Amino acid sequence: MNHAQQEVGDAGGARVMTRLDQLATCSSDQSALTRLYLTPEHRQAIEMVSGWMRLAGMNVEIDETATLIGHYPGREPDAPVLILGSHIDTVRNAGRYDGNLGVVIAIEAVATLHAAGEKLPFAIDVVAFGDEEGVRFPVTLTGSRALAGTLLPASLDVIDRDGTTLRQALLDFGCDPRRIPALGRDPKMTLGYVEVHIEQGPVLESENLPVGVVTAINGADRLRVDVEGEAGHAGTVPMGLRRDAGAAAAEMMLLIEAAASSSDDLVATVGSFELQPGAVNVIPASARFTIDIRSPRDRERTAAIADLTARFRSIAHRRGVSVAVNETYAEPAARCDPRLVAEFDAALRTKGLHAHHLSSGAGHDGLAMVSLCPIAMLFVRCRGGISHNPAESVRTDDVGSALDVLIAFLRRLPCPLPSSNASVSGTS
Amino acid sequence: MNHAQQEVGDAGGARVMTRLDQLATCSSDQSALTRLYLTPEHRQAIEMVSGWMRLAGMNVEIDETATLIGHYPGREPDAPVLILGSHIDTVRNAGRYDGNLGVVIAIEAVATLHAAGEKLPFAIDVVAFGDEEGVRFPVTLTGSRALAGTLLPASLDVIDRDGTTLRQALLDFGCDPRRIPALGRDPKMTLGYVEVHIEQGPVLESENLPVGVVTAINGADRLRVDVEGEAGHAGTVPMGLRRDAGAAAAEMMLLIEAAASSSDDLVATVGSFELQPGAVNVIPASARFTIDIRSPRDRERTAAIADLTARFRSIAHRRGVSVAVNETYAEPAARCDPRLVAEFDAALRTKGLHAHHLSSGAGHDGLAMVSLCPIAMLFVRCRGGISHNPAESVRTDDVGSALDVLIAFLRRLPCPLPSSNASVSGTS
Repeated sequence: MNHAQQEVGDAGGARVMTRLDQLATCSSDQSALTRLYLTPEHRQAIEMVSGWMRLAGMNVEIDETATLIGHYPGREPDAPVLILGSHIDTVRNAGRYDGNLGVVIAIEAVATLHAAGEKLPFAIDVVAFGDEEGVRFPVTLTGSRALAGTLLPASLDVIDRDGTTLRQALLDFGCDPRRIPALGRDPKMTLGYVEVHIEQGPVLESENLPVGVVTAINGADRLRVDVEGEAGHAGTVPMGLRRDAGAAAAEMMLLIEAAASSSDDLVATVGSFELQPGAVNVIPASARFTIDIRSPRDRERTAAIADLTARFRSIAHRRGVSVAVNETYAEPAARCDPRLVAEFDAALRTKGLHAHHLSSGAGHDGLAMVSLCPIAMLFVRCRGGISHNPAESVRTDDVGSALDVLIAFLRRLPCPLPSSNASVSGTS
Repeated sequence: MNHAQQEVGDAGGARVMTRLDQLATCSSDQSALTRLYLTPEHRQAIEMVSGWMRLAGMNVEIDETATLIGHYPGREPDAPVLILGSHIDTVRNAGRYDGNLGVVIAIEAVATLHAAGEKLPFAIDVVAFGDEEGVRFPVTLTGSRALAGTLLPASLDVIDRDGTTLRQALLDFGCDPRRIPALGRDPKMTLGYVEVHIEQGPVLESENLPVGVVTAINGADRLRVDVEGEAGHAGTVPMGLRRDAGAAAAEMMLLIEAAASSSDDLVATVGSFELQPGAVNVIPASARFTIDIRSPRDRERTAAIADLTARFRSIAHRRGVSVAVNETYAEPAARCDPRLVAEFDAALRTKGLHAHHLSSGAGHDGLAMVSLCPIAMLFVRCRGGISHNPAESVRTDDVGSALDVLIAFLRRLPCPLPSSNASVSGTS
């Protein structure tokens, strides 16, 4: 790469990092970063980010799901739109890079084009989605599903901890939920969806690479498992007469771990586990736990769930308890578009970087956007693979590299894309 | 047994059952029985029971730990005292027999003596302890420890869910905690402590016997186990890089179950189990669970705890997590006095009943009273061994048999007891 290009990336990377520090002050909590969907701190973040969008030459609007959109016109008034961005909501006690980096770096890329007076053969919509983490309400990807035209009206009936429906929260935020169906984009006018995000995993760090190109977002299922046994006095019921729901559930937990460990692609996690009545001296009558299971291959994930369910039933039968397995969430794997992947590969090579391919273990808005348009993601190395944690950390020079790659990608991206069939991609 | 005696038992058993139904109305909840220590419903129960005590010829007082005591004098004014009774507090959503049966049947036995104008060579104190279940405060046996003179002043500093100390709750109830040390009874003037209680287990039902004689109250330890691993994103951390506190704890749970199942005397229960942060998509950073472990043999229990702790450490080492095991409660096994057991055996035989011996898996006030005086317990068959549950059930004719046996026991009990050394008892 030439010296001038590197300097753009360095200065831009530093500016992105400064803005991410400023954005992290929009939080419900002074000592930790927590910014949930449709809260006052979400409003603060929208105001801060929209200022940066305007400085970068964009027209700004907030849609009916509170997605902040900055529009940077193309060369022609009716040019197709490339949607570029990420989300600005966070988990509780979050890091400052997850989501926010992808929004701020997209603005910086557009600012670079704007400063150079450059227009592209496509328009750019920089989006800052408000609900990717799914923390406040038991739904997620609300903003991206609305753009993809796949947001179910019933999902607005869900409630938060305080009993407020998503519909009411949108109204309180100034949105009009009745107009959400009109947000669905025209696939013909949508060139693609591109997101820069921290890796949230250890692969790029172990490969000593600043960025990597994502080939797929892993599919994920979430299951709730309910085991029903019989309560009893911890001192008086002989071991052989017990129907202990907790011990049965513990056996199932270990089975889940063993199944995922024996596969290269599967990961599975029991994150929540509760016993009822939950008293030290009472044999548990019931156990409830969750499973989060992910794989880049839908078929492997589905087969693992079927196999686990059958083995749970056999454990339950042997122990005289009952078991019910319910899917609470299912998202098929989303393949990144080979043409966009190839363009990212080429952009990396022009910057002298190795185009390492990897899949995303975490879910992203691309899972929703893939039903609208081709998607692609660029991952940025993060320290220790840590995310959803205040210890989340990225290097300024890695952010500069990602910015350089993103600008090069935008400058070389053809519009329209070549037809899918013609593409023989380099994705693995 | 002769016909007249059987009729006393039958009528008395029916009266006991009616009173237990009445007593069950003293509850914090209309639809379930919940009566915690030093609550308004505890006060109601004291008022109801003290009325029955007075009808049975007893002088009534409430001591400084809110134990209700009905005094039935002996033949001589300075006769030693036999303490007879149980507790009137309950667990949440309780049955109506646990504890309460032992109080009401003791009153009925004294009422029978009183109606016949009978005085014995010892006085009888019928006690209704207020804190045997240990539900409101994280301590238990408060009333019986006070009589035994073993109540630690520091135990009054414990707090309930609302932050009220036991000391303040006693004051609010009208008790004077400073005078608790004076409640300690003189061992020389205390003939013994005798309690009738439902079995809370399945043994008498399986033996088809109405009552059984207890030989020991099992010792119990409660442990809190804390496992510390590392949180991580459920989608991005490969299985091999995880330090999952939940999976480690599940492995420990199964080990506990296996250890108890392979022993004839041990029972062990994991009743409470929590994961932090407890989110479906986060690898658990920490797990906390409880162990309740019991045995009639202290040595076996202690050895099992040491063995489990060593094996927990080995699991933790292999999984890269840490583990801490803390004892939160320890109560050695309490042996019932062979002389009192022999008197119960003889009383059963006079009623034509088989004197079946068994140990108590549940803890009782005898655990505290044993440090003051000889103890004994008579168990009454209960349906399915179920207790701590609204489905708790006993048969009226079994209660009648227990009443007959108790009256026979009181009538034949020598005072003083023969010296311990002279006794060659029939206990198993």
